Amino acid sequence: METRPPRRASIGARRSPETEAAVKAAARAVLAEKGYAGFSIEEVARRAGAGKPTIYRWWPNKADLFIAIYGASKDAAIPLPDEGSLRADLLRYTADLWRFWREDTAGRVFKGLIAEAQTSESALAALRFKFMPDRLAAPRQMFVRAAERGEFPATEIDDRLELWVGFNWLHALTDLLSEDEPTLSRKIDLLCR
Amino acid sequence: METRPPRRASIGARRSPETEAAVKAAARAVLAEKGYAGFSIEEVARRAGAGKPTIYRWWPNKADLFIAIYGASKDAAIPLPDEGSLRADLLRYTADLWRFWREDTAGRVFKGLIAEAQTSESALAALRFKFMPDRLAAPRQMFVRAAERGEFPATEIDDRLELWVGFNWLHALTDLLSEDEPTLSRKIDLLCR
Repeated sequence: METRPPRRASIGARRSPETEAAVKAAARAVLAEKGYAGFSIEEVARRAGAGKPTIYRWWPNKADLFIAIYGASKDAAIPLPDEGSLRADLLRYTADLWRFWREDTAGRVFKGLIAEAQTSESALAALRFKFMPDRLAAPRQMFVRAAERGEFPATEIDDRLELWVGFNWLHALTDLLSEDEPTLSRKIDLLCR
Repeated sequence: METRPPRRASIGARRSPETEAAVKAAARAVLAEKGYAGFSIEEVARRAGAGKPTIYRWWPNKADLFIAIYGASKDAAIPLPDEGSLRADLLRYTADLWRFWREDTAGRVFKGLIAEAQTSESALAALRFKFMPDRLAAPRQMFVRAAERGEFPATEIDDRLELWVGFNWLHALTDLLSEDEPTLSRKIDLLCR
């Protein structure tokens, strides 16, 4: 029986964890310093000491890189509340999310991703088919549990989630992420009826 | 008594209506052909036969030009309904708005404006303090009339308007502007409770 040598992945296709971490850190730093308008893959490559072709092979467009640096930090920053009512859960989660967007580079990443999706079909696809399903899976659980408690019919879970998402996007994109608690509470109330 | 000659405005400060119309038409054409990603003031100036300094004097940034070409066409395209209930009004207006965004260059203008506001402080200010108050004045009337009819307290007018705006933005920015009537109706229902 013939023994074949183990397949060797080409060097280029195998990700080096060090390079990946360096590129993500550089991307975060460039966004923090220069914002989305001043963001370029050239600058990220220079700071990370990585080649542009490597970056493009791993993250074919800016949107993919934004998604990569946004995901992990969001899950770590925002615990999913479970306070017994959609109203209480949303109040907590929305306040945490807006603080995360205000204080972390994440806000710039998020807004940059949406802007990028208006200029590129592949960024739009990444936003719709990767970012949104991945990022909304956790907060969707607040709506699922509320329906299970009988707060509203299960058929309304995704419609209510969508209204809440639109509310958040509007505030992020107009840079209105500092509402006082009574005002936020009033709007969350409307979403919970 | 001394008679002073009438003050003459400098030529540069006085807008020529022909040039203004030519610039707006060129901006619409460039957006329609190349989208927001391919839009440049250089190209608009070239097609309109106008100087770049003139364009920048009248519309200091892209956002101002987007707002100028969006406004008139929206008011002409979307009549304000008055059907006796917020539900019926919103169903009609939202369907008209989404069709307008889908079929007209306006959708590209609107999305370009939001993207631009993520890269420039002056574009963000134009979005918040000019575009939104101007463009929301008409649809806000649907919410005002509903409150007058007693459908909900007047204190909820702007909160409900905001949820509806966020819902529209989310759909525009993810290019999901073709929902069937039953689905749209279900979501509008939630906004009217």
